[in-house]
Amino acid sequence: MNCRSIRRFLGAIVLTALSAAGLAGAVDPLPSWNDGTARQAIIAFVTKTTTPGSPDFVAIPERIAVFDNDGTLWPENPLPFQLAFVIDELKRRVPNEPELANDPMVRAALAGDLEKLLAGKHHDGLLHILALTHAGMTTGEFAARVERWLASARHPRFDQPYDRLAYQPMLEVLAYLRAKDFKTFIVSGGGADFMRVFSERVYGIPPEQVVGSTARTVFELRASGPVLVKTMDHLFVDDKAGKPAGIHQFIGRRPIACFGNSDGDLAMLQYTTINNPRPSFGLIVHHTDAKREYAYDAVTMSSGKLIEALKEAPQRGWTVVDMERDWKTVHSVRR
Amino acid sequence: MNCRSIRRFLGAIVLTALSAAGLAGAVDPLPSWNDGTARQAIIAFVTKTTTPGSPDFVAIPERIAVFDNDGTLWPENPLPFQLAFVIDELKRRVPNEPELANDPMVRAALAGDLEKLLAGKHHDGLLHILALTHAGMTTGEFAARVERWLASARHPRFDQPYDRLAYQPMLEVLAYLRAKDFKTFIVSGGGADFMRVFSERVYGIPPEQVVGSTARTVFELRASGPVLVKTMDHLFVDDKAGKPAGIHQFIGRRPIACFGNSDGDLAMLQYTTINNPRPSFGLIVHHTDAKREYAYDAVTMSSGKLIEALKEAPQRGWTVVDMERDWKTVHSVRR
Repeated sequence: MNCRSIRRFLGAIVLTALSAAGLAGAVDPLPSWNDGTARQAIIAFVTKTTTPGSPDFVAIPERIAVFDNDGTLWPENPLPFQLAFVIDELKRRVPNEPELANDPMVRAALAGDLEKLLAGKHHDGLLHILALTHAGMTTGEFAARVERWLASARHPRFDQPYDRLAYQPMLEVLAYLRAKDFKTFIVSGGGADFMRVFSERVYGIPPEQVVGSTARTVFELRASGPVLVKTMDHLFVDDKAGKPAGIHQFIGRRPIACFGNSDGDLAMLQYTTINNPRPSFGLIVHHTDAKREYAYDAVTMSSGKLIEALKEAPQRGWTVVDMERDWKTVHSVRR
Repeated sequence: MNCRSIRRFLGAIVLTALSAAGLAGAVDPLPSWNDGTARQAIIAFVTKTTTPGSPDFVAIPERIAVFDNDGTLWPENPLPFQLAFVIDELKRRVPNEPELANDPMVRAALAGDLEKLLAGKHHDGLLHILALTHAGMTTGEFAARVERWLASARHPRFDQPYDRLAYQPMLEVLAYLRAKDFKTFIVSGGGADFMRVFSERVYGIPPEQVVGSTARTVFELRASGPVLVKTMDHLFVDDKAGKPAGIHQFIGRRPIACFGNSDGDLAMLQYTTINNPRPSFGLIVHHTDAKREYAYDAVTMSSGKLIEALKEAPQRGWTVVDMERDWKTVHSVRR
């Protein structure tokens, strides 16, 4: 052994030690995830698509990730939170608007009679109370009502404001993707105007990256200035097969990563991952945790039925998250 | 005078010289703009809204700028370029599709009979040829047809591919705004799917920031993979009062800067600049340059009628660009 090879050997030891120290000191991007196949799959996908020189490298403009909201980013029990907003709004208004008090569908809503609201081919009762609470006011007034509700309402089980119940592990996935130059979008059946009130503050997702159900607004130039008045016209429901259509209309690119929790997300999972010329990733949040949250799939008291997507997941290579097993903590309870 | 004051005096001279050298060496963000009120107004607005400590500072997430396309970013004569695409597509297909050859509206289009196409309350002829060329195919097939047309078609007057006719001064405005962390959007009556084929390459505006006219697509999972089939259902025309509605639906924020050229942009100029709690800016490109491009406003052979917005501009403080006077060069003729 000569001096040069001793120096090289020592150099290799030093480099290895530095690398180990670097890795050991590296910040864990997903601290609320237990180390299992789900966490590993997320990290493997992000690493392979964002590391220069990787055969699976995807250029930054194409790094589009889409997330369902209800049941994926925050809970959807005992009711989708937007429906809780509708009911609370009707409660708030009934004392001042007698015609509401006499409305049979309003009464059904306040009595929790979901069967009556959902009756009929077109869920007319539900559409009716949606119209009462989502049409006729300006977009500014609507946003103010949602803000007021978020500040005062409490979840019946967790006794927290609704916007504190976002899933901490999913907030970490959102932040991790964005740190790697992904654009994160919501693609949800919920109302876009409803979600835009809090999406940036809670999820870091700006209004222009919220794809949801929408209806036409009407521009008016009033004495007080320009407004947009909400209507129920040309209602677009961004759910099931509507999700790929909504992705195309609002984003115009095929995503490469898709996160959902129910059969309402099946079409967008397929759209993202089947025969995609780019590497792609699909993930389903399976609610298995009755203790900390709710356990449901084929049978659900609320929305979020999950049957077909779960069946198809192995064949498609979708990652299935077992909430009970994979998440160290559930809610963010932060802001 | 003592040594200390001499040093301060010399220091001041040196600092002044350095500043002057710095300014003189600074890159001009708008080299194709003549130094006049229009150029100065653009720079003043961008400077005041993006300089930390400025009383008019606007936080980055709210720096939303919207641009009309036809007549603002590229020409709209002798026809809106998308209509030229429609006519060229029909010409291409007629030899192989005899039923097209016998279609009276197709014949009118190929004969340049705009009067016949635009006849009727709902421009039925125009809608018909739009349906023939914009519905029934997948989004992928449609995009391929637009790409093929862009590669082969030539403007009848300028004898250039259409995507080389973008306005160089406006490309500079787009780049300048983005360098100052604005998000630049197109908000146009033109088809979103049509514009998305070239918007990123030509304007630096990605598909998810193109707001245009849209119709529903239908998701299908075929043996070859998932596709979206274009239809004419639920057609949303993103023009006039539709532009603020489209801005709300697709962006969800009020812009602070708005660039247009016709009365079709009046509503979105009003939506952007009237009683906006944030500083705002409106600009109209007035086509005054028959020699290098086209001169039109109240009377136009194509679209882009400009009467009301020009009248309202002084009262609203909108910047009016005189193309002949304000632009050193017109077309980019670059790629």
